[in-house]
Amino acid sequence: MQSSYIINMEEWKKGFSFSVPVQVRFSETDMFGHMNNTVPITYFEYARIEFLKHLGLMGKWTQGDEGAIPVVADIQCDYVKQVYFEEQLSIYVKIENIGNSSLDLHYLAINNMEEICFTGRGTIVQMNRQTGKSIQWNETQLQSVQA
Amino acid sequence: MQSSYIINMEEWKKGFSFSVPVQVRFSETDMFGHMNNTVPITYFEYARIEFLKHLGLMGKWTQGDEGAIPVVADIQCDYVKQVYFEEQLSIYVKIENIGNSSLDLHYLAINNMEEICFTGRGTIVQMNRQTGKSIQWNETQLQSVQA
Amino acid sequence: MQSSYIINMEEWKKGFSFSVPVQVRFSETDMFGHMNNTVPITYFEYARIEFLKHLGLMGKWTQGDEGAIPVVADIQCDYVKQVYFEEQLSIYVKIENIGNSSLDLHYLAINNMEEICFTGRGTIVQMNRQTGKSIQWNETQLQSVQA
Amino acid sequence: MQSSYIINMEEWKKGFSFSVPVQVRFSETDMFGHMNNTVPITYFEYARIEFLKHLGLMGKWTQGDEGAIPVVADIQCDYVKQVYFEEQLSIYVKIENIGNSSLDLHYLAINNMEEICFTGRGTIVQMNRQTGKSIQWNETQLQSVQA
Repeated sequence: MQSSYIINMEEWKKGFSFSVPVQVRFSETDMFGHMNNTVPITYFEYARIEFLKHLGLMGKWTQGDEGAIPVVADIQCDYVKQVYFEEQLSIYVKIENIGNSSLDLHYLAINNMEEICFTGRGTIVQMNRQTGKSIQWNETQLQSVQA
Repeated sequence: MQSSYIINMEEWKKGFSFSVPVQVRFSETDMFGHMNNTVPITYFEYARIEFLKHLGLMGKWTQGDEGAIPVVADIQCDYVKQVYFEEQLSIYVKIENIGNSSLDLHYLAINNMEEICFTGRGTIVQMNRQTGKSIQWNETQLQSVQA
Repeated sequence: MQSSYIINMEEWKKGFSFSVPVQVRFSETDMFGHMNNTVPITYFEYARIEFLKHLGLMGKWTQGDEGAIPVVADIQCDYVKQVYFEEQLSIYVKIENIGNSSLDLHYLAINNMEEICFTGRGTIVQMNRQTGKSIQWNETQLQSVQA
Repeated sequence: MQSSYIINMEEWKKGFSFSVPVQVRFSETDMFGHMNNTVPITYFEYARIEFLKHLGLMGKWTQGDEGAIPVVADIQCDYVKQVYFEEQLSIYVKIENIGNSSLDLHYLAINNMEEICFTGRGTIVQMNRQTGKSIQWNETQLQSVQA
């Protein structure tokens, strides 16, 4: 049941180099005894923002000088392996594709045994906070994401 | 083990008339099989805001015209009875005391069997969002909360 | 930017009849002033479980007699329109496809103006809690989901 | 507005030595632009469990051999300073008092500037999961918490 956005798993995995560590909190488990399915989306957000900061893209947004904010256009997650309380995961994120005003990002969660726990993808769009319209990447931004 | 803020339970309960309904979500349970202890604080917030709207106090804040926002100065919760997935609760809230720029609010959660599940209290303060300083209630607001 | 799982939007919308109401909580907003992107996944879970209860499928699972639980195999969400604090949404859910041990469910969130706020889809699988292996639907279950 | 459970702030602060680091997630902010008030309770839980693991008390509970689980009897939080997205906090926790089957724990959150952001306290009780009755600490446990 491989995800449609992964053509060749080994190749796909090699593309990742940036990751953040997370540890599953007790409040993130549910009565089935495992990490609740809503939690990876939170981890993706955390990894994504750290990645954008790493690329030098977040300053502009959180300062909000120009009203430009990154919004999530879509997100998806494939749950490969049950994850439990206390597990320490590495959440990897990479750029798969660069649009005029958007980025297609891919995600990979690995546990301490190097097992894949879940994967994902999603598009973010740079948008004007007031008008809701997309804003094209400028030259500086393009250099950041193409580095 | 009665809470220090409840002198006479029967009297205390009679003081409540406003409530909102909530139903415990699956994502709000944890691996011990019950509602996670962090969840009532979320219910208190929901009940509090609906209560403030009911009193006519929220409009000013969410419009943010004057930079005044209500912030939580402190909150506490006493867990009386375990709560489980799917339970339908009534979250009651009442004003216990009115300060110059603050309100002391009390909370009560009741299940369908009329059992007390948890209680709580906490102070909110009207504050200037930029300066962080407290803002006294004006006449209109005082009339709303004293009604 | 229509989602790949929606061929004809009008036809797709007509397929929904079951929904649950939700109201966006303050704690579900983020510093960009809107509902955080992680929240719809929580709403999908709530709608999904109410739907499965409606179909008569949850009893077996939460009683856990046989160790069978429904797990989320994948989930995705397309954010069509920004959603704000206090908005009242209807979260629709329907069965798109029935597998041997799985269900492909589709989701639709509509606001009070009948506008589409977000859509989604995802597969759940009936799984043995101990072994992690999928469990085929039995006759009773198949009748429930085909009704 | 010092909390009732802090008699002498300097003395009180000196009592802490165990802490865990947290970084405020974007999904933990709200539309007022700061960390939502429900979040510290989640941080307290995380710090508490790491502390109990550090003391050697969690193994028994999560293995669940004897049906004994720690439940939160009450929790409270005093918000001293607004906290924002991305801030890195140290969440300190200490034992204030040892009961027959309970622990009174105190909490302190400090930012990178050594400023107090919020404080808290709360009681946990060792309880039988099935009967809901409290279970006295045994000798091994008492030695762990008195160390």
